[in-house]
Amino acid sequence: MSAEFVQSGFSPDDTRWMREALALAERGLTTTQPNPRVGCVIVNAGEVVGRGFHALAGGPHAEVFALQEAGERAKGATAYVTLEPCAHVGRTPACAPQLADAGVRRVVTAMTDPDPRVAGEGHAILRTAGVQVESGLLEAEARWLNRGFLSRIERGRPWVTVKIAQSLDGRTALANGESRWITGEAARHDVQFLRARHAAVLTGVDTVLTDDARLNVRLSPEALAIDGAVRQPLRVVLDSGLRLPPFAPIFDVQGEVRIYTRDVDAGIHHDGLTARGVQLVAAPQAEFGLDLGFILRDLALQGISEVLVESGPKLAGAFVDQGWVDELIIYQAPVLLGHKAQPCLDLASPIRLDDAPRWQIRDTTPVGQDIRITLVPLVDSSGVAG
Amino acid sequence: MSAEFVQSGFSPDDTRWMREALALAERGLTTTQPNPRVGCVIVNAGEVVGRGFHALAGGPHAEVFALQEAGERAKGATAYVTLEPCAHVGRTPACAPQLADAGVRRVVTAMTDPDPRVAGEGHAILRTAGVQVESGLLEAEARWLNRGFLSRIERGRPWVTVKIAQSLDGRTALANGESRWITGEAARHDVQFLRARHAAVLTGVDTVLTDDARLNVRLSPEALAIDGAVRQPLRVVLDSGLRLPPFAPIFDVQGEVRIYTRDVDAGIHHDGLTARGVQLVAAPQAEFGLDLGFILRDLALQGISEVLVESGPKLAGAFVDQGWVDELIIYQAPVLLGHKAQPCLDLASPIRLDDAPRWQIRDTTPVGQDIRITLVPLVDSSGVAG
Repeated sequence: MSAEFVQSGFSPDDTRWMREALALAERGLTTTQPNPRVGCVIVNAGEVVGRGFHALAGGPHAEVFALQEAGERAKGATAYVTLEPCAHVGRTPACAPQLADAGVRRVVTAMTDPDPRVAGEGHAILRTAGVQVESGLLEAEARWLNRGFLSRIERGRPWVTVKIAQSLDGRTALANGESRWITGEAARHDVQFLRARHAAVLTGVDTVLTDDARLNVRLSPEALAIDGAVRQPLRVVLDSGLRLPPFAPIFDVQGEVRIYTRDVDAGIHHDGLTARGVQLVAAPQAEFGLDLGFILRDLALQGISEVLVESGPKLAGAFVDQGWVDELIIYQAPVLLGHKAQPCLDLASPIRLDDAPRWQIRDTTPVGQDIRITLVPLVDSSGVAG
Repeated sequence: MSAEFVQSGFSPDDTRWMREALALAERGLTTTQPNPRVGCVIVNAGEVVGRGFHALAGGPHAEVFALQEAGERAKGATAYVTLEPCAHVGRTPACAPQLADAGVRRVVTAMTDPDPRVAGEGHAILRTAGVQVESGLLEAEARWLNRGFLSRIERGRPWVTVKIAQSLDGRTALANGESRWITGEAARHDVQFLRARHAAVLTGVDTVLTDDARLNVRLSPEALAIDGAVRQPLRVVLDSGLRLPPFAPIFDVQGEVRIYTRDVDAGIHHDGLTARGVQLVAAPQAEFGLDLGFILRDLALQGISEVLVESGPKLAGAFVDQGWVDELIIYQAPVLLGHKAQPCLDLASPIRLDDAPRWQIRDTTPVGQDIRITLVPLVDSSGVAG
């Protein structure tokens, strides 16, 4: 929230309409990438005259839908938008001038758009046109909704979510490797929604080889409550030695696959993978495995805002150890697997308890017979999540 | 619930009054041992005329308090009691005849008292006296409230609760043993209430030696919402080799200590412990350590209905492995301690995932920064918990 639009006294009605705009924005949860999710409600004399949300990159913005519905009734109305209206002509015309042209008297936004092409310019255009502008209403909620987009724009890397399915005693597989299934059907179904809202799903080659993982979204548009087709996340595989064969089941389903490897040209699978349209990218080595920072920066350059890490304990542990994890989602099944079973994370232990990085529980929800615990780092130095 | 008192159509009012009786019974949660917790509400013409709960073994029963308050208004009233009124004269006169003598017209109970001195006899006395008797209202709730008492009477052993304080990845201590504190102050405060409602707290000698554990209740009567003194649980220490010295801090606080050991007469500490009034009991050896079944049966004979196991991973794991655990309470702190930290339970792993005993989550509650997960075995073969 920029200094010139200090949060003034928003009314309970303002909050109510902004909540509705946020709910509209959420309808684009699985489809807007790489764009942010945005919702808009236009209210005239206490009555909603227009609603809109952004659904697809390249398609109309939320404000355009809302203005269309409002028509003449936009005159003198207040528009509630979850993100500063855009100032730049991209694949669609800029929204800020359109709101002004339609005669909207007041615009309330949840937050400034950090996209350098907007960054206060949308608000400025509106003010210059004589529109009253207030920003910062439910900003924390709006930032959380677009934490991936914000991370990419503000930090140059995607928001990283690590998902773990574990037993009560923190185990993800028996000593013999058996891991199907620790959590129940409801939890596995829930993971499908997780995948759907992430732009990419990332794993290590061993998970793909051992579990025949396909990492795609197997939900219908109805289940996702969307009109168009289901967007498949980019599947990202870390495969130093390029061991993934072109006939792996991961290639049998729709969606792109991007492999990071030590040497793109090495390995017997190179030609086969290229023929299947796989994106092969060389990544530098770090102390343990490939350089995760490099990979995250590269993914951000590809427009990837949110990455879901669904991997074995080694790779997930590396993400945690190196401090890349913004959100930890643990599906915990009511079963005990014993101390010889495999740990959920291969993770260096702190020397003293006080040194252990602390997390904060954001949410605990029963999912079928299991529970889902969502955590964020206790000290969020990123500033991304409001 | 015995066959002759089939649950008839209880009215919503019946349910409401029985809930109130259960709430009254709960006020004896930490004080009635070894007796069950019992509450009584007497209702005349839709109005509560008497309330009572059992507070202390040897003191008046719930019905007596309620009848005293009701006086003449007990005539023609309905009495709601969470447990079948007693038929035997013990330290106090029998309740069933007193209810009949007071002119109570109808008695609704949540459950039959399995105590062989009652076991339907209380209901029978009432019916013989012309009182209408119905049983089985909110029976599951009433059984849960007295699950310890029922376990002792019906199975000849106490209800066993295992408490674990662990990290997100199922660790109770760093590799170097440091475990203070993984969970926060609120969780540790919560454990005090757990201790208060258990008749005994059980641990291994290493926990007492290493952590200087005292295992007592450090809450005021006000915190426990009781009138009299705080009842200290029996502290039970498993100490095969009788290594616990008489000067251990556990002996510095109020309350009894009972040590199970291989050979009562062995060890240099024998005389010192005896002098401190410690109960020394010989227990047979089992495959791993002392025979837990023997110890539980012995505790039941001492009138112990509920045992809280607060121990290291080895002993807690043995309780789980051998199938003694009726309730598992996990305090989970939002911290990751890594795969080299100590596991919460030393537990044999199942050979196949399908063979892993499943638990059922009864409750998940935030406790300060941590969460508390309460579980019971998925298949409760005990029949104790309704």
